[in-house]
Amino acid sequence: MSVLITDIGELFTNDHSLGIRHDMAVVAEDGLIAWIGPASSAPAADTVLNADGAAVLPGFVDSHAHLIFAGDRAPEFAARMAGESYTGGGIRTTVGATRAASDDELRRNARRLVGEALRQGTTTIEIKSGYGLNVADEARSLRIAAEFTSETTFLGAHVVPAEYRDDPWAYVALVTGPMLNAARPYARWIDVFCERGAFDADQARTVLAAGQAAGLGLRVHGNQLGPGPGVALAVEMGAASVDHCTHLTGDDVDALASTVIDCMCHCDGASGTVATLLPGAEFSTRSPYPDARRLLGAGVTVALATDCNPGSSYTSSMPFCIALAVRDMGLTPSEAVTAATAGGAHALRRTDIGRISVGARADLIVLDAPSHLHLAYRPGVPLIRTVLHDGVPQ
Amino acid sequence: MSVLITDIGELFTNDHSLGIRHDMAVVAEDGLIAWIGPASSAPAADTVLNADGAAVLPGFVDSHAHLIFAGDRAPEFAARMAGESYTGGGIRTTVGATRAASDDELRRNARRLVGEALRQGTTTIEIKSGYGLNVADEARSLRIAAEFTSETTFLGAHVVPAEYRDDPWAYVALVTGPMLNAARPYARWIDVFCERGAFDADQARTVLAAGQAAGLGLRVHGNQLGPGPGVALAVEMGAASVDHCTHLTGDDVDALASTVIDCMCHCDGASGTVATLLPGAEFSTRSPYPDARRLLGAGVTVALATDCNPGSSYTSSMPFCIALAVRDMGLTPSEAVTAATAGGAHALRRTDIGRISVGARADLIVLDAPSHLHLAYRPGVPLIRTVLHDGVPQ
Ligand SMILES: [Zn+2]
Ligand SMILES: [Zn+2]
Repeated sequence: MSVLITDIGELFTNDHSLGIRHDMAVVAEDGLIAWIGPASSAPAADTVLNADGAAVLPGFVDSHAHLIFAGDRAPEFAARMAGESYTGGGIRTTVGATRAASDDELRRNARRLVGEALRQGTTTIEIKSGYGLNVADEARSLRIAAEFTSETTFLGAHVVPAEYRDDPWAYVALVTGPMLNAARPYARWIDVFCERGAFDADQARTVLAAGQAAGLGLRVHGNQLGPGPGVALAVEMGAASVDHCTHLTGDDVDALASTVIDCMCHCDGASGTVATLLPGAEFSTRSPYPDARRLLGAGVTVALATDCNPGSSYTSSMPFCIALAVRDMGLTPSEAVTAATAGGAHALRRTDIGRISVGARADLIVLDAPSHLHLAYRPGVPLIRTVLHDGVPQ
Repeated sequence: MSVLITDIGELFTNDHSLGIRHDMAVVAEDGLIAWIGPASSAPAADTVLNADGAAVLPGFVDSHAHLIFAGDRAPEFAARMAGESYTGGGIRTTVGATRAASDDELRRNARRLVGEALRQGTTTIEIKSGYGLNVADEARSLRIAAEFTSETTFLGAHVVPAEYRDDPWAYVALVTGPMLNAARPYARWIDVFCERGAFDADQARTVLAAGQAAGLGLRVHGNQLGPGPGVALAVEMGAASVDHCTHLTGDDVDALASTVIDCMCHCDGASGTVATLLPGAEFSTRSPYPDARRLLGAGVTVALATDCNPGSSYTSSMPFCIALAVRDMGLTPSEAVTAATAGGAHALRRTDIGRISVGARADLIVLDAPSHLHLAYRPGVPLIRTVLHDGVPQ
């Protein structure tokens, strides 16, 4: 099946040889982008979708989401907004609810959130475990996650569960032993929350090394609540991404920049380790935002993601994250859109998504607006008119 | 025609005798709310809408929007975000485009924005003129606005147009004379931008007095860019609302509080002069937010509105404004929802909207969420599942 999108007012490609083009058309065939060119010379196709002068972008790549859980924490959110300080303890609330939930409850909740994200333009979403924290519940979390995405991440090392509070190394042994064995068939990545109150550098290194030995790619949660060893560890271990990056030293920025290598792909540089920024978490915890401008200035590859989770960032909206990145993190609208598409692709080490190039996956968004600028210019407004996923209008 | 909404998980009424109730049902008949009670004892109706445990709220009342214009100012927005300072000069760009547009272009643009707002839960919207700034274009702006709402506001005194730059009093004479005469048949309210760079206190008083003499209600834009005479003037003249209120002195707060009188209606006090806060403007101009907590603490009636306009706040999203009010202005989620519903109704001196009471208009929102908390807890996510306007599902 082929689909022609024509009368595209602005085509935002993330492809160096194309950039941002006007009055364009795109043909999707068998799930891939088959043709890109001026609307005036577009070929025929089975289905024609007239964009009526609107902007067309690559689908958003949300490279950081926690969607396998039960319950919500709305009262905790309201209490925090009323001035109570945030503690990691809230995660344990969700762990209890998740363990108690049936497979179908977890599946239904994940389906709701994946659908909500898709309607907001997210065509690739990473999904982490991390609210099971025992062998059976981490394995089933990943088994359910794998029903929705190939970008599944084993986050057994999210927090030390209550039953191991006095012996975190015993929990690390469980995570790197039986839990990793049970999770491995369903996981592409392993992740660890390297932060005061969660796992220290040695524990986190042990977790990542075990995952690497089991063939998983590496991701790190780090430097969210204060300076810490997360970024340095991510770079040391060759992680694909270190996420949050709210509190960075000059050495952290330099370390991230040192991982960037020139590449032949669509972006300015492939990154060994991407800095993935999660402004929804800063919004919903009333924290200072990371300095994205400083990272881009140093040459670091930056991604934007939602961190969608019921505790610290219960948004599934990539457009909202783009608006925050422009308002509060110093990115231009174009840089923010690139971070939310090509940046996320880099963070997942994918070259088939996050850009509009012949041969890339036909994951495309038609906006209810003439320009990508409107994603920041019109904050909060649902501006996703049509989503194509694998070449199929949703 | 009657509609029964049943299985309401949380009913947020703004009605003192009801408050927030659970497991409720509401019947709408002939455009009004005819019955409210426990879901278990709901009467029959022509149509049944099962809320499936979701929250139901009064429709949002957006008491401040500038929807009659042509063109957009996305490049100006991007330049401002890149560090250029905001000047009022941008309004004149839109004046040029608006004067050059056909009636149908203006109508189409307003229809798009009113529809977009309705899908986001706004069932009452105020619409201002203010981009015509001559007799013919202000009159036609209001004529077109009146096709969409009864809450029309004559804002000839938005800014002094270029052709009167050297003689603002001559422009005030035009506004209060021929322009007011031409606008009056289509307008319910008159408004003035009382701010450095726009109209000073004497000019603004002259505009408001002329409007009052012509039978229009009074509104004021004031204290947005710095301290100024707007609030004091609004209180002196008995305006229904003074909007922005970003920079207030203690005297301003006291003056607003002094206008509050006890009332028999659904809220804590009818206000002579409501403080309408427009956080979308602070978001999109990267300015500090007004201190809503201080106003509520002093007993002032507070409303939230979008200020939807192509220059300083191009959002039509009341949920976005609620999320900002909770994150950055010190309101609880419940106070923010009340400000966005009952507060807006007060700002328009309406008692038939902004609440769920028997006899009120059947303007209702069913959320994709179990509680009003989610409007702040899930920022950026489109959470409006169904809108009833005048008792009719949209
Ligand atoms: Zn996370
Ligand atoms: Zn305004």
